[in-house]
Amino acid sequence: MDPTDSDIVRVFSLNCWGIRYMSKHCQQRYVMIGEMLSIEKHDIVLLQEVWSEKDFLFLKNKLSYTHPHSHYFKSGVIGSGLAVFTKYRIHDTFLYRYSLNGYPYMAHHGDWFGGKAVGMVILTIGGRTAHVYVTHLHAEYCREKDSYLPHRVVQAWELQQFIRHTSAGADLVIVGGDLNMHPQDLGNRLLRSYTALKDSYLETTLYAGCEDGVTLIANNPFINKKELGPFKTGIRIDYILFKGSSKIDIHCDAMSVTKGSVPNHPFPYSDHEALTSTLRLKSHQPDESGGDKETKHQDFTKEKLAELVNIVTEARTEVKVGLHCTERMRYTAARTGVMGLALLLLQLAIAAVPWLALGAEQPFPKTSFYLLALLCFAILLTTSLLYVFYTIELKCLQGAEDQMRLCVGHLQERLRGFPLAQPHNVLQCPLP
Amino acid sequence: MDPTDSDIVRVFSLNCWGIRYMSKHCQQRYVMIGEMLSIEKHDIVLLQEVWSEKDFLFLKNKLSYTHPHSHYFKSGVIGSGLAVFTKYRIHDTFLYRYSLNGYPYMAHHGDWFGGKAVGMVILTIGGRTAHVYVTHLHAEYCREKDSYLPHRVVQAWELQQFIRHTSAGADLVIVGGDLNMHPQDLGNRLLRSYTALKDSYLETTLYAGCEDGVTLIANNPFINKKELGPFKTGIRIDYILFKGSSKIDIHCDAMSVTKGSVPNHPFPYSDHEALTSTLRLKSHQPDESGGDKETKHQDFTKEKLAELVNIVTEARTEVKVGLHCTERMRYTAARTGVMGLALLLLQLAIAAVPWLALGAEQPFPKTSFYLLALLCFAILLTTSLLYVFYTIELKCLQGAEDQMRLCVGHLQERLRGFPLAQPHNVLQCPLP
Repeated sequence: MDPTDSDIVRVFSLNCWGIRYMSKHCQQRYVMIGEMLSIEKHDIVLLQEVWSEKDFLFLKNKLSYTHPHSHYFKSGVIGSGLAVFTKYRIHDTFLYRYSLNGYPYMAHHGDWFGGKAVGMVILTIGGRTAHVYVTHLHAEYCREKDSYLPHRVVQAWELQQFIRHTSAGADLVIVGGDLNMHPQDLGNRLLRSYTALKDSYLETTLYAGCEDGVTLIANNPFINKKELGPFKTGIRIDYILFKGSSKIDIHCDAMSVTKGSVPNHPFPYSDHEALTSTLRLKSHQPDESGGDKETKHQDFTKEKLAELVNIVTEARTEVKVGLHCTERMRYTAARTGVMGLALLLLQLAIAAVPWLALGAEQPFPKTSFYLLALLCFAILLTTSLLYVFYTIELKCLQGAEDQMRLCVGHLQERLRGFPLAQPHNVLQCPLP
Repeated sequence: MDPTDSDIVRVFSLNCWGIRYMSKHCQQRYVMIGEMLSIEKHDIVLLQEVWSEKDFLFLKNKLSYTHPHSHYFKSGVIGSGLAVFTKYRIHDTFLYRYSLNGYPYMAHHGDWFGGKAVGMVILTIGGRTAHVYVTHLHAEYCREKDSYLPHRVVQAWELQQFIRHTSAGADLVIVGGDLNMHPQDLGNRLLRSYTALKDSYLETTLYAGCEDGVTLIANNPFINKKELGPFKTGIRIDYILFKGSSKIDIHCDAMSVTKGSVPNHPFPYSDHEALTSTLRLKSHQPDESGGDKETKHQDFTKEKLAELVNIVTEARTEVKVGLHCTERMRYTAARTGVMGLALLLLQLAIAAVPWLALGAEQPFPKTSFYLLALLCFAILLTTSLLYVFYTIELKCLQGAEDQMRLCVGHLQERLRGFPLAQPHNVLQCPLP
């Protein structure tokens, strides 16, 4: 292959909202999605919320000619919902399940049961090794009082760790998915700053779609306008990110986002909009030193390093807030459990030693007595499970905070290594 | 740094058996371990089963001069037990929690509560990037009827995935820990074949220790001889593995394993023996093509590829056995749950509609009635939790099996790519 050849890779990403029997017109929408994908023939298709394996298999069957290679990532109780279809052969896959992902007792939110994760597939595109990631982060149900923020920040932390550490051998990196974060949200800044991934929407030459690149829009008939809150027209939470390497330059020639309706169809593909990025790959000439410049140790400018230190510090603060909340919840669970146990022991004592109840004018009604015992037992069991769950959550938060502290220390040390007198000194560019 | 310089790195690994108040002489042993480490001054110390953070902090304090850099990996309810101490600065860390790790109701085995994982730290050793891994896999409680085998095989699968995918940018890789697998066990072959990691014991020039490199030995006073079963003298389940890269050659000059006693002390450091490997690093001269040969796509000989296909197929079979067992257990949980529910509903019906019990000569004794209801309720709750747990286990096993199937397909394709007429054709060496 001529190293100066340039290739076009069309990447598609969609959150399919595929909860069987719950999401509106679920099956009809999968038929629409399958038809569109088989006509459009994107090179790489990254889907989220394909909660049912049957729907994945339906798409796999439908796309067997246009996208002969596919992978469905399994995780959690329901699944991770993540699927990849591509015309390139998949050599290898790897799944990282986020350590924190909501609470099982928040069943109406359902995130915990979904086993949110980031999946990686390794492809060869015209002789180049592409590491393609698909992910879906915990949803934001209430922006003003977002109790899942520490979880999402830890997910963003683990996502950037996973991408950084597994992409050292890649010629190009493509990330697509529903990050459930606005462009300037902490987790998003953390991800993009640390990995140097570029945002298709910000980098594209041509753009077709709603203003501000929004992917959850008021015009979508499946969207409840109230959920968008102050963001009247919509929010941007789905992304296609990319980066090249010392060997490959990538440019986003075009990006398009659907606008809440599909021609000749009564409803859109999903409650999220579909994203398509057209990426142009261009091989570098080997540099003058005669060898490939390695990018395994990402090099930042002094400004970028300082910004990163601030972002990781901000993330650390958010994790500490999460730690404080979880400690409080664990304490409440422990206290309630102890009270339940005390009440149960008291009841057992009353049952075993009748004179304890002698003072009562009437005997303790048996039905109430047993119902109370049942309640105590249920409290004891529930609080024990919660105590274990919160302890695991604490360990994960502490672990993430430890890693962040270590990284901040390392980044600050690198920052101190920059010469003082040259404020705009750039040793090496962030990425070629 | 002169690229032909050779460096010595001394690596230490020990499973500390550090269950506070349960493991014998726990605190005294930590004092012994701390003293030995501060005298021996190994370059990299990899510890497992440091279950209490207090003990980690004790060692951190004790080793603050000899090993100023350390990291403790947090996971699960108790912790991962994994700790690293080193004289080299730690730049970055990453933790991968194994998706399967026993059962929470097997509390006497305790593995589930430990949150078994593999931790990675990135160090710079004389200008070279070292990726150092420490891990501890699920214990084997009964070799003849090992119900945790599918879990351990999936852990070994995830371990090799994690090492392969995160070490592409490394100049050298060091792995230490308690794998809970004999040298020829499936998971061990899988790990070493796929990653091309070398075993210190097999590669060393000088060896000092018990015969066959055993690390769980009959001579250790903390070992119950019965647990060793037919392996009278002991078994080898702790390892220090390593590999170089296109830039670095590594050779194991010496390896030593303790022999169940410590001079001037009444008991050994742990129930496991301590391992020390002396690794010699030697930089390659840049090869003749003028650039670095990349090893991101590991190259195998035809024989190695065929062997790997067989091993992954064997692992896939083991995972399928696990799938079958888990499906059966989930079915049992579901059936028991339905029976509990039916009994509870019957009781409620008896309570609500008195004529249902009219046929009885005596009324249903109230105490028995309520105790039975309590039992039904407990059964219903337990089986529901078990059902959710087994469903998660099934997803993990299915996910691992999918990945293995994909890998076998890819490996077989590479195997077909080898010319037929040259049975000993070697395109590229396994690793420099």
